Order: sequence, then structure tokens, then C-alpha cells
Amino acid sequence: MSAIPGFWAVIPAGGSGTRLWPISRRQSPKFLHDLTGSGQSLLRATWDRLEPLVGDQMLVVTGVAHEDAVRAQLPMLGHDAVVGEPSPRDSMPAIGLAAAMIERRDPEAVLGSFAADHVVRDTDAFESAVREAVAAARHGDLVTIGIEPTRPSTAFGYIRLGDPLGLDEAPNTRRVDEFVEKPDAETACRYLETGEFRWNAGMFVVGATTLLELLAENHADMVDHVRTIAADPRRMRDLWPTLQKIAIDHAVAEPAAAAARVAVVPAALGWDDVGDFASLAQQLRSAGGAGAVPAVGTAAGDGDVRVVGSAQVDAVSSRATVYGATDRHIALVGLDRISIVDTDDVLLVLADEQAQELTEIVARLEGQGLGHLR
Amino acid sequence: MSAIPGFWAVIPAGGSGTRLWPISRRQSPKFLHDLTGSGQSLLRATWDRLEPLVGDQMLVVTGVAHEDAVRAQLPMLGHDAVVGEPSPRDSMPAIGLAAAMIERRDPEAVLGSFAADHVVRDTDAFESAVREAVAAARHGDLVTIGIEPTRPSTAFGYIRLGDPLGLDEAPNTRRVDEFVEKPDAETACRYLETGEFRWNAGMFVVGATTLLELLAENHADMVDHVRTIAADPRRMRDLWPTLQKIAIDHAVAEPAAAAARVAVVPAALGWDDVGDFASLAQQLRSAGGAGAVPAVGTAAGDGDVRVVGSAQVDAVSSRATVYGATDRHIALVGLDRISIVDTDDVLLVLADEQAQELTEIVARLEGQGLGHLR
Repeated sequence: MSAIPGFWAVIPAGGSGTRLWPISRRQSPKFLHDLTGSGQSLLRATWDRLEPLVGDQMLVVTGVAHEDAVRAQLPMLGHDAVVGEPSPRDSMPAIGLAAAMIERRDPEAVLGSFAADHVVRDTDAFESAVREAVAAARHGDLVTIGIEPTRPSTAFGYIRLGDPLGLDEAPNTRRVDEFVEKPDAETACRYLETGEFRWNAGMFVVGATTLLELLAENHADMVDHVRTIAADPRRMRDLWPTLQKIAIDHAVAEPAAAAARVAVVPAALGWDDVGDFASLAQQLRSAGGAGAVPAVGTAAGDGDVRVVGSAQVDAVSSRATVYGATDRHIALVGLDRISIVDTDDVLLVLADEQAQELTEIVARLEGQGLGHLR
Repeated sequence: MSAIPGFWAVIPAGGSGTRLWPISRRQSPKFLHDLTGSGQSLLRATWDRLEPLVGDQMLVVTGVAHEDAVRAQLPMLGHDAVVGEPSPRDSMPAIGLAAAMIERRDPEAVLGSFAADHVVRDTDAFESAVREAVAAARHGDLVTIGIEPTRPSTAFGYIRLGDPLGLDEAPNTRRVDEFVEKPDAETACRYLETGEFRWNAGMFVVGATTLLELLAENHADMVDHVRTIAADPRRMRDLWPTLQKIAIDHAVAEPAAAAARVAVVPAALGWDDVGDFASLAQQLRSAGGAGAVPAVGTAAGDGDVRVVGSAQVDAVSSRATVYGATDRHIALVGLDRISIVDTDDVLLVLADEQAQELTEIVARLEGQGLGHLR
């Protein structure tokens, strides 16, 4: 398969990944790390996944603090392909600026936006869904990829499927009835049962100019500003701080869905946003979990230990996930759904069931004079 | 209170403490460590507890490999007060040799044998029980101290109380009906309910010569040999290896009990043998647990974290025990009855409920080329 003509990838590489501390740190966020033991960082895996679809037509938008790290991990990118945001302003300004830059190079271009810190296990299904989304986007819609739910997750927003669009070149594509917020557990179960809901993974495929037109309906100033910056990057300094901090979902996707301008390609990709250690542990246990290796000498019948990193682990009667790069011997006895992160300056031991509460620990660091560990 | 005239303390300092690895190691066993954060090792705490009762009339019997460490922790002991066993032969040869050495200095002496690696929280009750036991021992019996059970433990042997002896100077002392083996859980509950059973803590108080006479009934050779070594320490080399490897319980206490020659002073001492991490965690949570300090910033309502060592711990929703001397920050989230040992070369994470299974991990070390960590 060859690259899709006129198709560009935009990779927003932001987000602090607090719930994956101390792997993810302020100075070295989640997307720079190999969370799954696949041998490459999430960012590099994202590039790998997109390169067959776009060749070198790719833009990475990241914080200025991470520009060097991004360039180091993706040395194949040209200098102009990495855009540094002076300050974080959520996804809409980042993707909007990328759209304005792409539009200048090719007014007919279609762009696809894919976060730098997600996991996709089924690369073939991903390619196929993106090709269909690009075909649908050429008809003028904003197209999203709707992930088939594998569990009643309360951590993701959902997409309610509408009627099939009936396009020959995009046969699975359907209208989006609406985007719905993260549900409670009961609602999530109902969504799963009906079969009419998909996870919103934040993957958007759309004509660059179409996106800016949709954005202009509610945020005309932002469109003017990103086009000005795209024409003269020196304007970044004064204009960027004026841009509204807003996610693409609220700025464009939801209003466009209400106007029946959004389509969805339903797909099963083995996708996860690996938002916390519980989700990462689950990901590592999924069929074909990339790079997951059993622990040294895991012995007991109910043992299920996954090790990411070079850590040497011996375990008995344990179900645990270990992230370790120190040369210490790690011994586990009788654990159940525990995650352990062993680094030089921080040791974390966490019950997966309460993975969300990690944010409390991270939030307290500054007050304890431990801001350097954040 | 002053030292008891004619009373000697014998401290067998042996045992590998495998179930407390990696705190306890082959080259640095349990009794050399401050397991409870009291500020002193178990051995030193044992000395502290006995010194008011015996002054300098104390013998420590330990493996030759640990002689230097014992002398370093107890510099107040004279050179002859530390006896090095060329090889481990269980408790009877160790205590028997000590008895023969003491008998030579004072034929009327009473000795008390107290393990170097137990915890006693109520020192006053201990002193009082020992004084009564010495008084009873002067009547010619082997006297043990029977610990009031605080839970239906299956980890200890039990003593069944018989009739009161009716001694004026030892009013609580009773005959021992029998020593019984470690019970199953159901039996342990029954023992607790009847109120007629006490834990066998291996504390024996007896005239030195009486002990050797009782021993001679079944092990006359051993008595000859330990008396020969006591008279001429150069004979240690050839005679020690010939001594039968046997515990004082089997060699003397059980047969003497069958002959109604054993008495018991029942007592509540806050005693534990801290045999594994579950028992140590429990000890640290008991009222007045020595030196137990709350974790830094332990916050959540159900938080109960004890830290032994200099480790800095922050925890949320956790019940855990942390032994740490590295300078790493330790973060805990959502744990329940977990013990963590953080050392330079080994990290252990263990569910207290399965503390016994740690032996499997330790047993596997050699086969993994990690014998140096044992």
C-alpha cells in the first residue's frame, strides 16, 4: 500500500500523563516513553503507524520544552515538521495552526489528527479505517474514527452512530448522531449492549480548509490568527497567547455533529489511550500486547506478571505489572492487580483498582518540596 | 529492682530469618536488625531487657560467622561472653554448652534462655515473669514462660496449663500438662477459647545443673561432651560436630513435662517472634508498637502506613508497611496489607496474607545465580 495523495498527518504531542507518574514526568511526558515494552516510544510508534499513509507529510505540534526530545526521537522529520507551542492551549489551537500550515502548501489537502500517546494494536485495521475516513472526508465532512468498545469504559466519550452514508469508496461510514460525554458505569453498560455507540478516540480526518471553515463558524478570530501565524511564524509570539484554550471536540466536532456535518468510520483497532496504570495493565494483558514478556521464574499457577523494562522479577502467586529499569532484583509475593514502577529516584506501588488516585500523590509533591520529582 | 543473685542469661542468636528476607540475610540475620524501628537491633533490645535481671552474667551463643557482628553490637560483653558455634546444631547443644560453662562458675546458678530475635513490648511484665520463674526454678523444675495468646496463631506451639504449684514466692506458677505442636486454625481457636493454653515462646528458666541432669536422661553423651568443652574450649573443634542437632523442646522440655518436671509462669508480655512480614506488620500496629512512625503525608481516611527506616513515604488509601533505607521517594496508592522492603540491591513487595510464600522466592535465588542476594 502506498501513501494517500494529498493526505497529511498532524500529531498533537501534549498532555502531562500525570496518572502515569513517575514514568511520565513534566520534563519527559508520556508520549516520549515506551510504556508497553514494544521497543519504541508511543510517539515513535505513532510515526511508524502513520508513515505508510502519509510519507513525510507530517506535522508534530508539541510544547517548546519538548521540541528537542521530539526531534531526537523523530530525526527523519524536517525542521519545519515540528511546531513548538509557546504555551499549552489544548487541542484546537494546535490542530488549527497545523491545518493553516497545511492549507498553505496544498489547498486541497486532507489532514488526520492522531494523538502521540495512544496505543493501536491492529495496524492493518487502522490503515484501512484511515483510508476510508480520507475518502469520506473528500466529500466535505469532518470524519472521525469510532472505536468499537471492548468494555463499558467510563473514561472515554462516546459517539452515537447514525445512518450509513452509502458512499461507494467509504462503505462503512455512517453519520454521527451525536457525541456524548463520559458516561457513568450503568450508562456505559447500556451503550455497550445497544451496539450503536463507539469510543471517541479523538481521531479526526478532514479537509484542512473544511476544518478552518467549520471552526470559523464559532471562532472566526482563531482562524484568522492561525492563518496569520502560518503565513508569518514570527507572529506566533504575540498571537498564540490570545488563542482560546479549547478542545477540538467542543470547538468544532460537537457543533458540526449537531449540523449533521460529521461522519464516522467504525473500527476495531485494539486502541487505548493508556490513561492510567489500570488501563496500561489491561493493555499489556490483551492478546498480542506488544512486547509484554513474562517475569523471570514466574512460577505459581495463578501468576501473571508483566515486566516492562530491563527489570529482573521473580514472583509467586502474583498478578502484577512491573516497570523497572534499575538493576535491583524485584521479588513479588501474593499480589493481585498491583503496578510497580521502580526508578532511581521514585518507587511507586499502586493498586490498579485505585489508579485514578495517583493524581493526589503527584499534586502533593510541590508542597512536600519534591517538585523536582514531578 | 536489682539483678537476681545467681541468675544467668543465655541468648541463643541463631536462625536465618528467611521469611524476613531481604532485611534478614545469610550474612546478616534477623537478630542483627532493627525490625521495629525501635532504634536498636533485636539482639541489643534483648540485652537491654535482660541486663537489669542479670547484670553482666550473660552468654550469647552464635554462629562463628556472626561473632564479630555480635561483639560490635554488644561491646559491653566480655570476650568469654560470646560463644561461637562452629556449625549450627539447633538449640539444645547451644544451651547445653552454656549451661556447662555457667555450672563451672556457679554450681547453684539458674539460667534463663531467651532468643535474640523476639520482640517483647511489656518489659515490666517480662521482668516480673522472669523473677517468678527463677524463684520456681530454685525448687528444681524446668520453668517456662507461657505467653497469653492474643490470636489463634497456627505459627506457635502451645503449652497446656496444669494445676497451680502453690509456691509462695511464685504464686502464678502452674504445672505444665503438656507441650502441644503448632495447631491447625480450628484447634488454635479452641485453644484460645478454653483459656487453658499459652504460647510456647521457647523461654526456659532452670538450674544449670538441673538442665544437664534432665538432658542426661536421654542424651548422656551430649552432657559429657558439653562439660568437656566447657572445661577445655580447645575440644570444641573435635566434639561440637558430634553433637546431635536437636531442639531443647524435644531433647528436654517434652520428656520432662511428661514426667511432671516442668512448670510455667503464665504472662502477657506483648511478645512476638516476628517470624514473617505478616507478624511484623501486626507487631508494628499493636498498641505502643515501638518506634512505629506514620508515613509522611499519609492522608486518606483509611490510610495506615508504618515506616521503618529513613524512607520518605507518601500514601493514599493504603494499609502498608514500608522498610526502607534508600533515599528514593516512595509513593503508595490504594494498597491493602502490603509490605514493601526497599534496599539497594533488592525490592520486595509482598501481600501480608501470603507472607509464608516468601520462602519460595528465597529458595530460588541460588538457581538464578543470585546467591549473593540471599
